[in-house]
Amino acid sequence: MLPRHVERHFLGRDIVRDVVLGMSDGLTVPFALAAGLAGAAASSRVVLTAGLSEITAGAIAMGLGGYLAARTDAEHYESELRRERREVAVVPELEQKEVEEVFTGYGLLPCDVAPLVAALRQRPDAWVDFMMRFELGLERPNPARGWRSAITIALSYIAGGMVPLSPYMVFARSGAALPLSVVTAIVALFGFGWVKGRFTGAARLRSAAQTAVIGALAAAAAFGLAKVVA
Amino acid sequence: MLPRHVERHFLGRDIVRDVVLGMSDGLTVPFALAAGLAGAAASSRVVLTAGLSEITAGAIAMGLGGYLAARTDAEHYESELRRERREVAVVPELEQKEVEEVFTGYGLLPCDVAPLVAALRQRPDAWVDFMMRFELGLERPNPARGWRSAITIALSYIAGGMVPLSPYMVFARSGAALPLSVVTAIVALFGFGWVKGRFTGAARLRSAAQTAVIGALAAAAAFGLAKVVA
Repeated sequence: MLPRHVERHFLGRDIVRDVVLGMSDGLTVPFALAAGLAGAAASSRVVLTAGLSEITAGAIAMGLGGYLAARTDAEHYESELRRERREVAVVPELEQKEVEEVFTGYGLLPCDVAPLVAALRQRPDAWVDFMMRFELGLERPNPARGWRSAITIALSYIAGGMVPLSPYMVFARSGAALPLSVVTAIVALFGFGWVKGRFTGAARLRSAAQTAVIGALAAAAAFGLAKVVA
Repeated sequence: MLPRHVERHFLGRDIVRDVVLGMSDGLTVPFALAAGLAGAAASSRVVLTAGLSEITAGAIAMGLGGYLAARTDAEHYESELRRERREVAVVPELEQKEVEEVFTGYGLLPCDVAPLVAALRQRPDAWVDFMMRFELGLERPNPARGWRSAITIALSYIAGGMVPLSPYMVFARSGAALPLSVVTAIVALFGFGWVKGRFTGAARLRSAAQTAVIGALAAAAAFGLAKVVA
């Protein structure tokens, strides 16, 4: 076994993906919103009210969105599984032709694939699994994924959002809290990007820099826009 | 060809996915934030400043996040492609064993796969493509996807966010704008959920109801929390 197989079946990969999903936006959007409102000279109380509202709404929207996405994946898999089972049972000749087409797409001849097709026809269950993975490119989803995904995304969003909001809990004047919030957020985004790079296999320094730049851009744009609007 | 093949290779699927991604959050989070601030008796001007800041930040964070995700996918594909090319050239015996393992996992015997393996060994390029898809489960990413994805997500977020914000541009008192914003947002979420169900193959009414309920829950939670905090 080569190392990449370990990575492919890495048990925590779904959790890492959900933490990244929630925390990327959680560290960025509440921070930028707070910077925008502070730029528009709102009080820290208004910044906190808006920031906490945003964190609540974002955590619910992203969490439940993740739950629904996981459930849709699971239902899609089940419905395709039923269809493949029916087709393997009812029109095996058509299914056999589909297996052949999968391989002839790679320049193989039907005679190269004949023994494989014959062997699959002896094992209908394995044949169905084979079609799910190789014809349709679908992996069996984890049934427990829905709620765990929702909670992981929501908590990551909340954890990310509270970091740049905390200075506004200390200083009543939002202008005084803003510089500390900016520094805290950029450091947190940089650290998060670094760790994210470690888990996703990307270059760490580049991942860290990109994450920090996106956060800074979003905050600068919100700051500028709020100054114009307010 | 069966109808599902058409669906699998549906050209607009990436665009639909990006619109859904941007608009799901765009219709929900700015709406909920505005409801929270209106509940905390902020003026329509504060609601608009916060709402537009949030839309700007959210569009940038989600858009650039989508761009980076697409680029990471493309880089991951390229790096695995280089690795497979090297392995097929340098250690073909090991690669041959890996092809066999892919199939013996489905209860097939090495002798069933032998002609297929022999044919692949004659065609190194097809072999590499085969390993990418069947061993690693990777599809070749569209190189133009990055920026198009970023812009589609960002514009969908902005379009979604402006709908529930528009009443606050008409009424100076946020309490007067709130009911209209709630009705507009719920109708828009319901319609969006319906269309989303049509494109993703989910039951339309259920998709519409789920999308509207998530938005309503997020707004109610933000409203309640803002009342407590402010």
